[in-house]
Amino acid sequence: MAEKERKKLAIIAHGGTVDRLYPVFILASAAAAMDMETHVYFTFWGLRALVKGALEKAGMPGDYKHMEDQVKERLGEMKYPTPYEMLKRLKATGMLKIYACSPTMEMMGVREEDLIPEVDNIAGAATFLDLASEADTTLFI
Amino acid sequence: MAEKERKKLAIIAHGGTVDRLYPVFILASAAAAMDMETHVYFTFWGLRALVKGALEKAGMPGDYKHMEDQVKERLGEMKYPTPYEMLKRLKATGMLKIYACSPTMEMMGVREEDLIPEVDNIAGAATFLDLASEADTTLFI
Amino acid sequence: MAEKERKKLAIIAHGGTVDRLYPVFILASAAAAMDMETHVYFTFWGLRALVKGALEKAGMPGDYKHMEDQVKERLGEMKYPTPYEMLKRLKATGMLKIYACSPTMEMMGVREEDLIPEVDNIAGAATFLDLASEADTTLFI
Repeated sequence: MAEKERKKLAIIAHGGTVDRLYPVFILASAAAAMDMETHVYFTFWGLRALVKGALEKAGMPGDYKHMEDQVKERLGEMKYPTPYEMLKRLKATGMLKIYACSPTMEMMGVREEDLIPEVDNIAGAATFLDLASEADTTLFI
Repeated sequence: MAEKERKKLAIIAHGGTVDRLYPVFILASAAAAMDMETHVYFTFWGLRALVKGALEKAGMPGDYKHMEDQVKERLGEMKYPTPYEMLKRLKATGMLKIYACSPTMEMMGVREEDLIPEVDNIAGAATFLDLASEADTTLFI
Repeated sequence: MAEKERKKLAIIAHGGTVDRLYPVFILASAAAAMDMETHVYFTFWGLRALVKGALEKAGMPGDYKHMEDQVKERLGEMKYPTPYEMLKRLKATGMLKIYACSPTMEMMGVREEDLIPEVDNIAGAATFLDLASEADTTLFI
């Protein structure tokens, strides 16, 4: 199927904790399995998760910190991929595009070379909104 | 109006605190009043809220815990229905469908018999995304 | 272009912290620059941010409180507008409409005269959902 005919899922990834990163990548994986492409714009705490080494360290939010060890152990038993493993598998399918929010980078002092190499684009909100307004589904996570 | 012609609201209910559960059911109630059907996919902390007895105990997130008693008292004075009462009223209209996220159940050790009987379906993200991509409005709450 | 032909962005602003208020106004600004109108429904903690004096005091959520001073200082250096300045600029363009959630007002004891004068409408969820179901993009922030 031609790329322009594919359905599109657009996600603004605002959260940097695993309980928000997993839904981003789980939805993108489900989309890829349906031949639907996913475009994710990482902003605020989500942008910080794209700094090298950060995805591996992402934990639970404060209110659920007490469940972190239990969930991580369970995910290990399930041999569930980590968020970064999911991101890399998705990039390999060609069905995921990753955008880093440029104003957040300036606000938090994050430079291009600080980001993981899987980032496709550094862009402002207008670039992403333009894309989102044509998407079939758009979520703020 | 035939069901396939009705407008559809799709919600991913990720939060398990009352400040997020209320918007889910308030929006679903508004939708039902407009003859619009609502499909809610409960995941992560939202899925935990579907465990028997949990909806009744849902409180405020940590940052707003100090307001919990005041808001609950005020809701009592307003004779405002609780989230579970709203859920049951909505189920009675036939305009609400409830999905429980199967990967979250595995991750958190929740079994089918632990869930409230109003759950319509236990499903993975793909099932819900397929539905969401055809919905008029999709929200992640 | 006639108003009815403009693209529409609908946002439910649920959060009252700066990390959620900025995305609301940044997206609305990007939309205005694209000749797309934005309709924002402030509910729960977002509604409280519309009380006179509250937008100026909005801070970071508890989990990121330690970054508040650093981010505010950086925004000052960037001469980045505050959320309330962004709101006022957007109102001046005529491309932003602000709705205050009436059930939240009752729940939290907020009166019409407590709200900033830029609010266009006090409304229930059905009013907003009707609008959202026709929007090109709808987000819950």
